[in-house]
Amino acid sequence: MSVNLFNHPFLSGLFGDDDLAALFSAEADIAAMVSFEIALAKAQAGQGVIEEEDAHRIAAVLSGFKPDMDALKRATARDGVVIPELVKQMRQAIGGSASEKLHFGATSQDAIDTSLILRLKAAALLLDRRLESCIAAFAKLDASFGAKPLMGYTRMQPAIAITVSDRIEAWRAPLERYRTQLSNVVKDGFAVQFGGAAGTLEKLGDQGGAVRAALASALGLSAATQWHSQRDRIVEFADLLSLISGSLGKFGQDIALLAEVGKEIQLSGGGGSSAMPHKQNPVAAETLVTLARFNAVQVSGMHHSMVHEQERSGAAWALEWMLLPQMAVATGAATRTAHHLIGQIVRLGG
Amino acid sequence: MSVNLFNHPFLSGLFGDDDLAALFSAEADIAAMVSFEIALAKAQAGQGVIEEEDAHRIAAVLSGFKPDMDALKRATARDGVVIPELVKQMRQAIGGSASEKLHFGATSQDAIDTSLILRLKAAALLLDRRLESCIAAFAKLDASFGAKPLMGYTRMQPAIAITVSDRIEAWRAPLERYRTQLSNVVKDGFAVQFGGAAGTLEKLGDQGGAVRAALASALGLSAATQWHSQRDRIVEFADLLSLISGSLGKFGQDIALLAEVGKEIQLSGGGGSSAMPHKQNPVAAETLVTLARFNAVQVSGMHHSMVHEQERSGAAWALEWMLLPQMAVATGAATRTAHHLIGQIVRLGG
Amino acid sequence: MSVNLFNHPFLSGLFGDDDLAALFSAEADIAAMVSFEIALAKAQAGQGVIEEEDAHRIAAVLSGFKPDMDALKRATARDGVVIPELVKQMRQAIGGSASEKLHFGATSQDAIDTSLILRLKAAALLLDRRLESCIAAFAKLDASFGAKPLMGYTRMQPAIAITVSDRIEAWRAPLERYRTQLSNVVKDGFAVQFGGAAGTLEKLGDQGGAVRAALASALGLSAATQWHSQRDRIVEFADLLSLISGSLGKFGQDIALLAEVGKEIQLSGGGGSSAMPHKQNPVAAETLVTLARFNAVQVSGMHHSMVHEQERSGAAWALEWMLLPQMAVATGAATRTAHHLIGQIVRLGG
Amino acid sequence: MSVNLFNHPFLSGLFGDDDLAALFSAEADIAAMVSFEIALAKAQAGQGVIEEEDAHRIAAVLSGFKPDMDALKRATARDGVVIPELVKQMRQAIGGSASEKLHFGATSQDAIDTSLILRLKAAALLLDRRLESCIAAFAKLDASFGAKPLMGYTRMQPAIAITVSDRIEAWRAPLERYRTQLSNVVKDGFAVQFGGAAGTLEKLGDQGGAVRAALASALGLSAATQWHSQRDRIVEFADLLSLISGSLGKFGQDIALLAEVGKEIQLSGGGGSSAMPHKQNPVAAETLVTLARFNAVQVSGMHHSMVHEQERSGAAWALEWMLLPQMAVATGAATRTAHHLIGQIVRLGG
Repeated sequence: MSVNLFNHPFLSGLFGDDDLAALFSAEADIAAMVSFEIALAKAQAGQGVIEEEDAHRIAAVLSGFKPDMDALKRATARDGVVIPELVKQMRQAIGGSASEKLHFGATSQDAIDTSLILRLKAAALLLDRRLESCIAAFAKLDASFGAKPLMGYTRMQPAIAITVSDRIEAWRAPLERYRTQLSNVVKDGFAVQFGGAAGTLEKLGDQGGAVRAALASALGLSAATQWHSQRDRIVEFADLLSLISGSLGKFGQDIALLAEVGKEIQLSGGGGSSAMPHKQNPVAAETLVTLARFNAVQVSGMHHSMVHEQERSGAAWALEWMLLPQMAVATGAATRTAHHLIGQIVRLGG
Repeated sequence: MSVNLFNHPFLSGLFGDDDLAALFSAEADIAAMVSFEIALAKAQAGQGVIEEEDAHRIAAVLSGFKPDMDALKRATARDGVVIPELVKQMRQAIGGSASEKLHFGATSQDAIDTSLILRLKAAALLLDRRLESCIAAFAKLDASFGAKPLMGYTRMQPAIAITVSDRIEAWRAPLERYRTQLSNVVKDGFAVQFGGAAGTLEKLGDQGGAVRAALASALGLSAATQWHSQRDRIVEFADLLSLISGSLGKFGQDIALLAEVGKEIQLSGGGGSSAMPHKQNPVAAETLVTLARFNAVQVSGMHHSMVHEQERSGAAWALEWMLLPQMAVATGAATRTAHHLIGQIVRLGG
Repeated sequence: MSVNLFNHPFLSGLFGDDDLAALFSAEADIAAMVSFEIALAKAQAGQGVIEEEDAHRIAAVLSGFKPDMDALKRATARDGVVIPELVKQMRQAIGGSASEKLHFGATSQDAIDTSLILRLKAAALLLDRRLESCIAAFAKLDASFGAKPLMGYTRMQPAIAITVSDRIEAWRAPLERYRTQLSNVVKDGFAVQFGGAAGTLEKLGDQGGAVRAALASALGLSAATQWHSQRDRIVEFADLLSLISGSLGKFGQDIALLAEVGKEIQLSGGGGSSAMPHKQNPVAAETLVTLARFNAVQVSGMHHSMVHEQERSGAAWALEWMLLPQMAVATGAATRTAHHLIGQIVRLGG
Repeated sequence: MSVNLFNHPFLSGLFGDDDLAALFSAEADIAAMVSFEIALAKAQAGQGVIEEEDAHRIAAVLSGFKPDMDALKRATARDGVVIPELVKQMRQAIGGSASEKLHFGATSQDAIDTSLILRLKAAALLLDRRLESCIAAFAKLDASFGAKPLMGYTRMQPAIAITVSDRIEAWRAPLERYRTQLSNVVKDGFAVQFGGAAGTLEKLGDQGGAVRAALASALGLSAATQWHSQRDRIVEFADLLSLISGSLGKFGQDIALLAEVGKEIQLSGGGGSSAMPHKQNPVAAETLVTLARFNAVQVSGMHHSMVHEQERSGAAWALEWMLLPQMAVATGAATRTAHHLIGQIVRLGG
């Protein structure tokens, strides 16, 4: 039992997901914030808000920027956000007059929330491919065993015979719906955050909208007006993560129950026991239940974070930071584990 | 402090909502289950599965059916669901050969889940009208005070001046998005549940699909294949309820903070105190925060209920029963309270 | 699916508990608040803070007091708490100079929290007797079947044989610990709340402590200093409720799994099915799982309510009102259902 | 926004706690499991279950044992627990006949749960010292400002004047109660877990109890009978963690509100803003609220984990692993942050 299960020396094999975790590393966060600052400078140069030359200098220096992580840590403990110190370090690296043009008209939430959105979009694309693989694996399972009879159970009691196809459909159909939702959110649900000190872009005068549109376009995001204190789209994405792991948890629970009764399934490669070497434990199935319940717990906190006071909440916003990345990795782990478990089914049905 | 706050003799004035609560009364539940059974008989008669005459008899008798509630209560304690006893009572009322045709090919989850969906659809329509009223009230508030300055606060500290319009936009914009979502779910998100004993409509042979389509059409629902063990659309609706109350909770929190600092708002008709008659408490604002957190708590349990084992879970399904109706009523109360609170604002801004 | 499951026309047979629900009715709440006001007047008379005659008048009138519930409901919607209107009605009933002495130096939270504590203490005593019955029923089960072999399962796979006694011990032992805890909290964990407007008993001068001690003694509570904004003891009690239902949920889950595998248990009187009359569903076992998860959800909100701002929170306090009574009734239902389920076991073990 | 906030390159300054995190590192976990295996071998040698010589060999080799972490990770992904592979590696290191005596009669949960308990006990001792420091800091604050007036607020509205002492008492008093509880649980609440394959110590015959007592004594734990599927004491400890962070969250919320209103408090060293250098943000106060809500979310999952099926649950047990270490570190961070925040108060009261 240890903290940081998602990159834990030995437990991350169960709960972790390297691809998803990479999106939520400190390095990925900083890279996304850097890309925000570069895109912002270019968008502002394009609108004549800053000089082209300054934007070039900013882009050139930041493309190779490496922050002093220890200083970031000390400053974040003091400031509650990494941006004041990060911008300070960036400005020192840039130097000269261009340094004053960095982060112009922006504030912490602009860089941090946009960084989050960029990485959530990447996560959505990754999860979509994972679900596609799971659906394909279910199709293959169906092709092999779909016509076989399977005892249907209601209230944990044998009811009447169904087919393996009927059961697979209950596992597969929600995943199709989640793919539709992921596709919709990728299309126009990920919006740049750009509002300045209190959301009004007060330093940009008439050019706020045009800069935001150019910034969004450069980052591949949609150009909604600033939404920092409106967390609904973030929370909806968290809901979707938990729906995905929830449906995969139902699949895991079903497999664990099939394995307990024992006659209608055969699994390869289950887990060993230190006391009973003869056992084959349905570890992947159980892990899916654990991950589903983990996300079902965290999603509650995401909904609490909607009570985001005034123009920016220090408390509610930081709560998201503690919950959402973990939810994304847990969902990735669930898709990875589900795909693995489908492959472990060597026989299904009577 | 009492149970059953939503129809509590005195606390329901705070937490209750008569319109929403009516949808989730035992009477409304039974009425919806009766309408399912009548529509099913007619749909089956239309497909030649049962005799027209029997369907007429079923419809005629059930239109005036009143169950023996005490017997339902005793039987539900034993069976876990109301349907076996309810169908038995219905059959006794119908009598003769028609009684055998009632509920033909159906099972408990078909009647109970379809009843739920019918009432969730009504709830969605009600909530949409409530949000429309809140949005209109915000527009009126904006017309009166929108141009006035308001101190923007970040991290609970004065930041820079914004306008009242800027703040109102943060309250209003999510509600517009929720109306779009409610409209989408009303359009095709509410599907009839009809699958028989274990989801396969095994008693209807080739006619299962046609009967389901006719049943769905008669009830104004969409005709998806049976989904009983796939709870994602139910949980998504719960998510939406909590998003709505969450955004209204942010509004409430903002008003409570404005009232605490005290200079930029004037409220009429706040609550009195037994010890300090001079106080005007921002009761409606606080209640919005309470309702937001209440739903943020419950939504977690809805996500747990996705781990719905096999063809029907007794445990996970019943957990929804304990949570979702309360969430719907709390969301209704939040819209009602928010509308009331907007009306209490007699001055906003500097 | 309906709101107010705990006194629902037909679902309360599953989820309700008449004894516990009675403690959390509006009537019981008012009766406890009345007893607080009477005891307060007497305690103040005993310390010479008010006249004996006034205390007698207060006690005499209030012993037959019946509030106007409709007026309470309207006022609570406005004031957020029932006390201002309730005290007003009481004063009208008392009349004359004594009416001014009612509720002297007290405020809403004193009456409401003390009413809660009085009823939580009664709930603790009730639950202790329920657990005693469950433990006795387990002892009887052990006497009948304890020596029989039972397959031990780890990770939902057969492990090695244990005895029925071993399994019963895992169900029974936590209940013994909860009895110890209930006994400890009954002994000195239930404290009167008495602090006046902002907790300082500012109207009572030097006599605050003596009045509080006399008040506590009259009500059978301990006499801790005012604790209104310190919710830890309330939340601990909620934790204990959820621990109880959690352990009983483990028992229910085990029985449902035994029934699914089917060889080592026989249950009498399980639930019927509308589609499959041959089935015997382990309804009581599943209900225990549902109730455990219900409380595991609610307990989160109780912990959120600890962020109780300043001298009294309108929002956090009201959240408790929405959660704690339901938790108490659900725990009562769990003890009732567990006792019933133990009695349904007609054979256990191989 | 990143995963693994507790040892995050820059966010751990906000949410992390080095002392607590060290207890829940993989290294500390393995060290505790090694100490379990050594103590077990010695206890068994003391009872004549294994040879003294073998126990010496086990202790000697394991005192310098370093596992192959990559192999542990691969095996844990397969087995669901680290023990089968860890024991295999240990046996290879020990070699000869002694290797067979390692882990004799024990199983995964014995080593893993006992390791947890050893580290929870260390956490309890650490947290107790932290609370002691906070209480001392509050006493110092009280000595400086206690007699000053402070506006009491109820329902976020000015009520009547109290003193700074009154407010400090509401922050301090619960911490005293938590120290008592920590002291009680340290005294006899941390029990060794030792039960073998399915809890019955079937390989130890009559000597099971004596070995367990000796094992417990060597590890400084109490010697309760095996409790693996009875998670109540673990969950109670999680409850206590959340109570601690909850009370500190109330303190944080109060400070943030004092800072927002602004007249009655002065803080040193608040956080900076990238857009508004003039601001002093009450970062530590907000962080306390975040940590309180984080734990209030997680505690729900701990209560769900009580539905621990049969002799060992793969799913429910692993859920604890994902939640409890994070709760412990968050609680540590809350005590650290609270102590820091108390020190930042340079003026309090009117």
